[in-house]
Amino acid sequence: MGSIATPALPDGLAARQAARDNAILSTSGVAPGYLQANLIVLPSRYASDFRLLCKRNPVPCPLLAESVDVGSFDNLKSWIDGVAGDSVARGIDIRKDAPRFMVYKDGQLVKSKCEDVVGEWTEDHVAFLIGCSYSFETALAEAGLPPRHMVLGRVVPMYRTNIRLCPAGAFTGGTYVVSMRPYKKADIEKVRDVTRPYVTTHGEPVAWGWDAVKALGIDNVNKVNWGEPPVTENGEPLTHGDEDNVPVFFGCGVTPQEAVMRANLSGTIMGHAPGHMIVLDVMDEDVIQKS
Amino acid sequence: MGSIATPALPDGLAARQAARDNAILSTSGVAPGYLQANLIVLPSRYASDFRLLCKRNPVPCPLLAESVDVGSFDNLKSWIDGVAGDSVARGIDIRKDAPRFMVYKDGQLVKSKCEDVVGEWTEDHVAFLIGCSYSFETALAEAGLPPRHMVLGRVVPMYRTNIRLCPAGAFTGGTYVVSMRPYKKADIEKVRDVTRPYVTTHGEPVAWGWDAVKALGIDNVNKVNWGEPPVTENGEPLTHGDEDNVPVFFGCGVTPQEAVMRANLSGTIMGHAPGHMIVLDVMDEDVIQKS
Repeated sequence: MGSIATPALPDGLAARQAARDNAILSTSGVAPGYLQANLIVLPSRYASDFRLLCKRNPVPCPLLAESVDVGSFDNLKSWIDGVAGDSVARGIDIRKDAPRFMVYKDGQLVKSKCEDVVGEWTEDHVAFLIGCSYSFETALAEAGLPPRHMVLGRVVPMYRTNIRLCPAGAFTGGTYVVSMRPYKKADIEKVRDVTRPYVTTHGEPVAWGWDAVKALGIDNVNKVNWGEPPVTENGEPLTHGDEDNVPVFFGCGVTPQEAVMRANLSGTIMGHAPGHMIVLDVMDEDVIQKS
Repeated sequence: MGSIATPALPDGLAARQAARDNAILSTSGVAPGYLQANLIVLPSRYASDFRLLCKRNPVPCPLLAESVDVGSFDNLKSWIDGVAGDSVARGIDIRKDAPRFMVYKDGQLVKSKCEDVVGEWTEDHVAFLIGCSYSFETALAEAGLPPRHMVLGRVVPMYRTNIRLCPAGAFTGGTYVVSMRPYKKADIEKVRDVTRPYVTTHGEPVAWGWDAVKALGIDNVNKVNWGEPPVTENGEPLTHGDEDNVPVFFGCGVTPQEAVMRANLSGTIMGHAPGHMIVLDVMDEDVIQKS
């Protein structure tokens, strides 16, 4: 996607600095072990409804942190158990610290992949940081269960589903977006076990099995709504019923973005460009749940 | 339902004492303003999965508190923001403080509406207290929107739906149970606004409108799975499309009970008898969310 190769960076701070300097694009694989976050910035009148949407739907919308006050782009309130606001991302400037941004005005995309949103940010904006699946993907790889798309250098398949979000104020009618990683049938319980502690980054799968495809309202698992189509180890499309490539569906951070788009909000809304996340100071080990 | 009339009691402590003395049955209307809780008691090996089920599905399964340690029946850990464990229910004895209990062994009901579970409780049990809808019903009544079943002295209609719970460990395949309160179409936004702050007690509706009935997989809104069928102001069954009696569906505390039953757990499981809740020291005003 990017023309700038992603360098290895030691930590979240270095990754944010590189993003601020426009020295990196995709954050996939940057600063391993550090949490990456989806960004959504809304006018303050929608903030309490959006916060509630996340709280009511924590699996697809795991809220990590938000602006400590309306208009704050450099100070966060943490929603992560045991992590203080100033430990989430020291010295952050939300307007600059994703490698690329998207800007929407009254529901229309007005800027795509811009380098910062300094000109668009106002004193009325509130930023929300939401967990993403990179954390548990690392854990899966370490457990000997690397996601197929990682192995093959592809983008994870994502789908709209019919699973209803619990509505919250202005945010009604939304449904879960899920990401999918195919696994051998015999490995699914292990996949569930490995991902279960990652409660702030979608956690264990929401559904699995060939029956789940239709149950989630997905017409054809080989036709994705975002990302790239799923493949077998040999790069072929999946075949219904194949027990070596059983679809396993996870909550996906595109869900809250879709919910925002669907709500037809007025005013200026911003977010990170897909794959161009904000890297935090928080490490995976700081957020996994000890049962 | 009960043969003992429900006396007015001043607070949660008095209600628990009355339950312990077997002086009350249904807790509906007892100690107004005080939170009432659903009770689920599980063998400790299921505790972390059940806690996670609640955390992943907070709208139907709002976890208020649990045993502070395995085996604790008189000390709670609070999951309510800003409420300490020892402020949830001072001097509680979970084994005695619901007016009536149910006991299941290896999935079979072995005792119905017994007065206590002192003989069944073991050092391996963990108790969970889960929010119920009484709180927001009071708020609706005070806002001039009393739920129909309250006005007519009936039990709220409840239904199984096709809304999937996010699975958690042993708890898979569950779906939302919803309660339903019919309202005039023009009042629904006000009903949403009044119930929205009650985040620990199911909060705002999960769905509404005549279209929602079929979308939730409910065959016939006049046929309930629990409670009593819904009625118009005149006591008639509802008519599809009637804009004076539009179904409004809320998360329901029967959801976690159903999920537990569905999971086919081994060992001894206990709960309160339906309608015979544990009344807490926490007041509605302590838990409503200030946005």
